[in-house]
Amino acid sequence: MKGKLKLEKGSLVTLSTHRKAAKALLETAPVYSAQHVNQADSKKTGKAQKRGTLKHKKFITTSKGLNFESFPMQLFQKAKKYGIWNPSDIDFSKDREQWQQLSDEEKKIITHLSALFMAGEEAVTLDILPLIQVIAKEGRIEEEMFLTSFLWEEAKHTEYFSRFVNEVMVSRPDFEAFHGPFYKVLFYEKLPIAMNRLSEDASPLSQLKASGTYNMIVEGTLAETGYEAY
Amino acid sequence: MKGKLKLEKGSLVTLSTHRKAAKALLETAPVYSAQHVNQADSKKTGKAQKRGTLKHKKFITTSKGLNFESFPMQLFQKAKKYGIWNPSDIDFSKDREQWQQLSDEEKKIITHLSALFMAGEEAVTLDILPLIQVIAKEGRIEEEMFLTSFLWEEAKHTEYFSRFVNEVMVSRPDFEAFHGPFYKVLFYEKLPIAMNRLSEDASPLSQLKASGTYNMIVEGTLAETGYEAY
Repeated sequence: MKGKLKLEKGSLVTLSTHRKAAKALLETAPVYSAQHVNQADSKKTGKAQKRGTLKHKKFITTSKGLNFESFPMQLFQKAKKYGIWNPSDIDFSKDREQWQQLSDEEKKIITHLSALFMAGEEAVTLDILPLIQVIAKEGRIEEEMFLTSFLWEEAKHTEYFSRFVNEVMVSRPDFEAFHGPFYKVLFYEKLPIAMNRLSEDASPLSQLKASGTYNMIVEGTLAETGYEAY
Repeated sequence: MKGKLKLEKGSLVTLSTHRKAAKALLETAPVYSAQHVNQADSKKTGKAQKRGTLKHKKFITTSKGLNFESFPMQLFQKAKKYGIWNPSDIDFSKDREQWQQLSDEEKKIITHLSALFMAGEEAVTLDILPLIQVIAKEGRIEEEMFLTSFLWEEAKHTEYFSRFVNEVMVSRPDFEAFHGPFYKVLFYEKLPIAMNRLSEDASPLSQLKASGTYNMIVEGTLAETGYEAY
């Protein structure tokens, strides 16, 4: 794949700070590339053929069986054990008291940060679906199973920030006024476009761009650092 | 909608035993019908327009806010509270002992039933994705949030049956030999076709057919009665 990759302007700067992860991602690309070519070969025209590609030919569980030793299944085990927190269990009454003692500037900073996280979590809850769909269609059931817990977690993040602002802030501010031009480019445009493109083009390069945008830029860089700011 | 509905042969017989649910489903159809017409109107040709439809115009959390009182959010609350069981926590050692005391016929009945459930749970884990995708694209975030817990639950069902046969059965039988012609029509063809069609056609009728096949026939009729047989 080396030399053939054209990521968007600026994204390589970000990727360069995550070399190990980027390298691992690139190494997996040729595997899916080979699979994709086979799939493309079998894509003949005609409605009957189209319907054929929608059918199941085999089920993993009843043929070779789930691979419980695989990395995604190990992650799934961890998610079921440690990922069962419930945002509704959190009592915000103390935070609400503290909120009333904050200065206007402090309130504005937290409102700003919350406005970015609220829409950000909603975006990742919505936009990961085309990626899970591609993985399911490629027969990677163990990966899909892990991603079901990942998706549920994102939905809980979405709920968490909404509960936080509802319970803590006295009035509801205009959150979207805090969505500046750069934020809008990424969360209103780049992320949904990179993810939704997978419905039309599930090639390895398209998957790489989607993962790069979602996991490395949005989750790995923005969310991870953003959480530190709270 | 009345009179315009053409469900597949045989499915009305099943639906007729679930009149109340079917009625509720039909009553929701005109609401989405109106939405769908608006969407179709805005679907002009051109790549820029296409990209436009992939972007986010608004986020619910930062504009009107999540509707915590809505029915899907109430279901989401229940799912987070009662839906956190872990198939890996189940100790099958006693079942394994009992298995060895069963007659060959008894073993065959359980193997048969397990073969149907294993692939069935795998199918519903895979095939619900296009429906969740449609709901997310229509901006029904509260419904998507509940469905993330639903999907995670299906993944756990898939894991559960695989763990059961791995832990209890002494050798691994040919499960797919138990997938007869009627089972194959439904799980290898009708279900994935009804669900995957949503990627091309998200009309209310298409959503109704998908939900009818998935929720009423597969889950509501087959799974519910099948569980009683264990």
